[in-house]
Amino acid sequence: MRTIKLTLAYNGTAYAGYQLQSGRPERTIQGELEKALFKVTGERIRPVAAGRTDAGVHALGQVVSFSTRASLPLQAWVPALNAHLPADVVVRRAEEAAEGFHARFSAVGKVYRYLIQNGRTPAVLWRPFAWWIPVPLEVEAMKEAGRYLEGEHDFSSFRASGFSTKTSVRRLVSLRWRVVPAGEGDLFLPGPAGTAPSAGESEGEGELGRLIAVELTADGFLYQMARIIVGTLVEVGRGRLRPQEVAEILAAKDRRRAGPTAPACGLCLVKVFYEPERPC
Amino acid sequence: MRTIKLTLAYNGTAYAGYQLQSGRPERTIQGELEKALFKVTGERIRPVAAGRTDAGVHALGQVVSFSTRASLPLQAWVPALNAHLPADVVVRRAEEAAEGFHARFSAVGKVYRYLIQNGRTPAVLWRPFAWWIPVPLEVEAMKEAGRYLEGEHDFSSFRASGFSTKTSVRRLVSLRWRVVPAGEGDLFLPGPAGTAPSAGESEGEGELGRLIAVELTADGFLYQMARIIVGTLVEVGRGRLRPQEVAEILAAKDRRRAGPTAPACGLCLVKVFYEPERPC
Repeated sequence: MRTIKLTLAYNGTAYAGYQLQSGRPERTIQGELEKALFKVTGERIRPVAAGRTDAGVHALGQVVSFSTRASLPLQAWVPALNAHLPADVVVRRAEEAAEGFHARFSAVGKVYRYLIQNGRTPAVLWRPFAWWIPVPLEVEAMKEAGRYLEGEHDFSSFRASGFSTKTSVRRLVSLRWRVVPAGEGDLFLPGPAGTAPSAGESEGEGELGRLIAVELTADGFLYQMARIIVGTLVEVGRGRLRPQEVAEILAAKDRRRAGPTAPACGLCLVKVFYEPERPC
Repeated sequence: MRTIKLTLAYNGTAYAGYQLQSGRPERTIQGELEKALFKVTGERIRPVAAGRTDAGVHALGQVVSFSTRASLPLQAWVPALNAHLPADVVVRRAEEAAEGFHARFSAVGKVYRYLIQNGRTPAVLWRPFAWWIPVPLEVEAMKEAGRYLEGEHDFSSFRASGFSTKTSVRRLVSLRWRVVPAGEGDLFLPGPAGTAPSAGESEGEGELGRLIAVELTADGFLYQMARIIVGTLVEVGRGRLRPQEVAEILAAKDRRRAGPTAPACGLCLVKVFYEPERPC
């Protein structure tokens, strides 16, 4: 037996999340991957994933692992699996892992990125990948509020109610922010700053506003923690909460105090850390 | 009666093209727009579009026009229509046009952009917007071949067979090229050059290769002309045609001599020119 570690990217729009739902017919990433693994190995493999992303959540660096008797050489896994996967799920890397490696239990940290399009008119081409918010957001207030969350805390207020784990203490290593113009042309053609805008690109930029991206790095995330944090910071950005109130919400350890859960479409699992790499 | 000119953006993935197909049930951009116009005006309006984009083709700057008796103030059209349109079709601008303005017949030029992802592994998040070609393309040869097409020519070789118009002479003002790394992180977060890559972005870049974008500006396009030009230039990029052969194909005025039609997903109508603006 050998242990294989795969890195996956997917557009989660068409899927009911990563995990196979027993008795439910919706398409899942795991379901597609199992079908491809069966075609390639002839084995009924049940891969485990680092992050069980919800319906509509995307991934650039999801990690899965499984054991197999297949003797397929390492370099053949990526093309073989991709030949059997749908166009919106792609294996980016295959590695031989040590026996006992487990994509979820061996993970020491993760990075999620959340994207908001903050402008009067929605950018259709960004729609599958960003939360469109037409009212202007105060990004500086959001950044200030986010600083209260950095560090090791009990994040009970930022976990979907009805879910529990051994501990709700997590270390949120950092929130990193980037704000750029939401030019729709960029989606088609990312380019260096200062490049002359192509025809038709510049006009709508004022209407489309900005892309606000926040990258959350933590040693682990509670269920829907990233989305509840973003939903709460957006309340700050809208002026409905003061930044300091986020510290109070954190201290309350009560989900009802935090803001709404941000929509799935804006979220992307970008990276999973394993030893010897660490999230900070 | 007044004449209204709208500028639309849409993700064409889920649509059977712009135009309503009589007796066919597929969703079209025109169909969605007519439903929204009916809800807003109470009138059965049949808008005409500058470019009747095919199934799967996108738009950032499609233009449509129609006459109406509706007294809705100009600034109300965009929010009113967007409230009734699906998330992947957006009205970006509404203008009052002169009587007699016709989105198609009044157009004096158009810009289409075609996007190719040229790398070993497909970038899932680019998939709806780019043609994935895993074999390396010789971009310099493609540029050289493209120069034979610039200028005023009979483009019969680059028109879908079975379609005719009064004249097949068009002036291809320019082909503009841009080649950038196909970092998938950019889709989520376009940023200025030199910005530190975020976690997880840099690793796959070699695998994902490059984005090759070509912007075609012409006084008009024959049916599928942009896609047949791109399909032919890709043959050059693959080394199956020499650049000079493209001049021979042009001179032959025979569709069978040109390359295959490039897939719809890579194409986007980015701009339509009207007087006094001109394509060059």
